[in-house]
Amino acid sequence: MARGRFISVEGGEGAGKSTNIEGVRARLHAAGLRVVVTREPGGTPLAEEIRQLLLAPRDEGVCEDTELLLVFAARMQHVERVIKPALARGDWVISDRFTDATIAYQGAGRRMGVERIQALRRLLLGDFAPDLTLLLDVPVDSGMQRLAGRGAPDRFEMEGREFFERVRAAYLQLAAAEPARFRVIDAAQELPAVQAAVAQAVEGFLAQGTTP
Amino acid sequence: MARGRFISVEGGEGAGKSTNIEGVRARLHAAGLRVVVTREPGGTPLAEEIRQLLLAPRDEGVCEDTELLLVFAARMQHVERVIKPALARGDWVISDRFTDATIAYQGAGRRMGVERIQALRRLLLGDFAPDLTLLLDVPVDSGMQRLAGRGAPDRFEMEGREFFERVRAAYLQLAAAEPARFRVIDAAQELPAVQAAVAQAVEGFLAQGTTP
Repeated sequence: MARGRFISVEGGEGAGKSTNIEGVRARLHAAGLRVVVTREPGGTPLAEEIRQLLLAPRDEGVCEDTELLLVFAARMQHVERVIKPALARGDWVISDRFTDATIAYQGAGRRMGVERIQALRRLLLGDFAPDLTLLLDVPVDSGMQRLAGRGAPDRFEMEGREFFERVRAAYLQLAAAEPARFRVIDAAQELPAVQAAVAQAVEGFLAQGTTP
Repeated sequence: MARGRFISVEGGEGAGKSTNIEGVRARLHAAGLRVVVTREPGGTPLAEEIRQLLLAPRDEGVCEDTELLLVFAARMQHVERVIKPALARGDWVISDRFTDATIAYQGAGRRMGVERIQALRRLLLGDFAPDLTLLLDVPVDSGMQRLAGRGAPDRFEMEGREFFERVRAAYLQLAAAEPARFRVIDAAQELPAVQAAVAQAVEGFLAQGTTP
């Protein structure tokens, strides 16, 4: 049986990930493929418990490396218990975020060091990576305006904007370094145009052939 | 102010760690040093929560890498919130186990790969390591007999014995590779003799001078 393919969907705030993930799922389903939709961090009961540890408010400051290791602990459980078994039985997997998000948010956004996180990724995941990554790219101001509805972006502090600028730049750098894996979607367009661009990227990927 | 020094105490089952840690603490205290005694995994509220995640029975199998990352997540929190601040204020720290235990138990005992764990250690901890490691070494059969009280060791399966043989060999290899850091104590002796050997090792370390 052919191994399934692994698609990750990435993007900053207000980029429309959820809507477009549903669009990708529907398109793959229509092509007769079995599809598993999952998310990070999370995806298994233990990974969700780890997610709760990460999200719980606590007096004790959480060290950056502790946070990073908890993210990867949840990820390895997700990969070994959900993603790899699904791919092995021929299902396709769509994950709402994967390792690129850790590099963009923790590595660049929170300045933990992109190279340090890449080293951890290589050590733990080796060559395992999505076959296709859809990056929903949107300028930071546009994403913030969408999140805020009709509100002006100045409700966000400058530090907040700079954080999201670093995240966006890191995502675009990752895409530039791996053009065969990434499809950068201009998510600043109106939703129908974004959906059409996503559909085109998925069709192109399907046309490449579905066997690895 | 002089930085404190970091002592770890390692050893297999039945090696007498707890008793000897108390002996080391008392000796340092008598020398006028402030001493923090701590343990792994654990040492902070979050690290203890992670310890509970590791110990809780669950239907979901825990992947080896997930376990390893949870151990290191707890460790980084312990290092950054407890050990390094104590050393910086001039306290001495005694830890019941540290990274050598991960290499011996997970790496060798559970065959996760010593080199993989060393790579993770280097990436996360860099040069940070105990200044002195007391390895309480005891032949596996003797340790098992102690644990079992007067019972015969055959209550342990052969697989159990082989596991502990791998752990012991890994500890001895680590000690051989870093003779300046390790003191190997023959913990198969009667307790007074073990305590005397530990005291001698600590006196020798104190005599080297307490400033790094």
